[in-house]
Amino acid sequence: MNLFFLYLAICAVPAVAGVLFKPGAWYRDLDKPTWTPPDKLFPVIWAVLYVLMSLAAARIAEQPDNELALGLWSLQIIISTLWSAVFFGKQRIKTGAIVIAALWFAVLATTVSFLRLDTLSAVMMAPYLAWGTFALALNLSVLKRNPAAVT
Amino acid sequence: MNLFFLYLAICAVPAVAGVLFKPGAWYRDLDKPTWTPPDKLFPVIWAVLYVLMSLAAARIAEQPDNELALGLWSLQIIISTLWSAVFFGKQRIKTGAIVIAALWFAVLATTVSFLRLDTLSAVMMAPYLAWGTFALALNLSVLKRNPAAVT
Repeated sequence: MNLFFLYLAICAVPAVAGVLFKPGAWYRDLDKPTWTPPDKLFPVIWAVLYVLMSLAAARIAEQPDNELALGLWSLQIIISTLWSAVFFGKQRIKTGAIVIAALWFAVLATTVSFLRLDTLSAVMMAPYLAWGTFALALNLSVLKRNPAAVT
Repeated sequence: MNLFFLYLAICAVPAVAGVLFKPGAWYRDLDKPTWTPPDKLFPVIWAVLYVLMSLAAARIAEQPDNELALGLWSLQIIISTLWSAVFFGKQRIKTGAIVIAALWFAVLATTVSFLRLDTLSAVMMAPYLAWGTFALALNLSVLKRNPAAVT
């Protein structure tokens, strides 16, 4: 059974979190690095990543001994849901950096476990790992530039 | 491989969300039914449910053709993370009721899919389904009793 749509339904949950906890006046007024992408780009990037990671997970679901890989996939997607709520909801830049660092390790572990089962699935996770690295750097830069906003 | 600890690590994410988005003055001042449990009981109940649902998932991970069941398990746990952020974070009672209704269906679907693979795993999900029913009723009662607080 192809589970692509179930995985995409799971991705809909962090997407809803992203819509509920979105950039507002607080984020706009933070000191951000010049390489910060425009707000409008984020949902587009995440939509592409959701499709890619769901396709990858659906391929992995057809492999034997996939429980660890799919478990790590679930771990990374649930951490990403928490991040929006922590960063934009609670406006906690430091806790957000800790959460996104945990996300980065979870995405790395997912990608490595996918690589052991199916090369193409790991390739489909690569853009997410790249984006995770970029997002972690952005969160850390915002943390460093706004000491007064850190609670 | 026994994946109990990976599933418990996934459950740690909604637990963190529950700590960050917890009952405060807003929730205290809402009109709640007499059968509302005391605040202190909620983390205890969830801790028990996390252990039971992780034990159940670890048993299911050893069954063949478990992808749909484990995918539904991931869907329910990610929806539960969203609920705390929506209800206590955004203080949206109506959206919270929609999220918890979605959670209830996801827990039901998970339990049914577990039942097809391993009876004991489904039994370990039963307290969660019972709690989900109670929590949905509580959210709906709070929604009905506080029309002025619904945004």
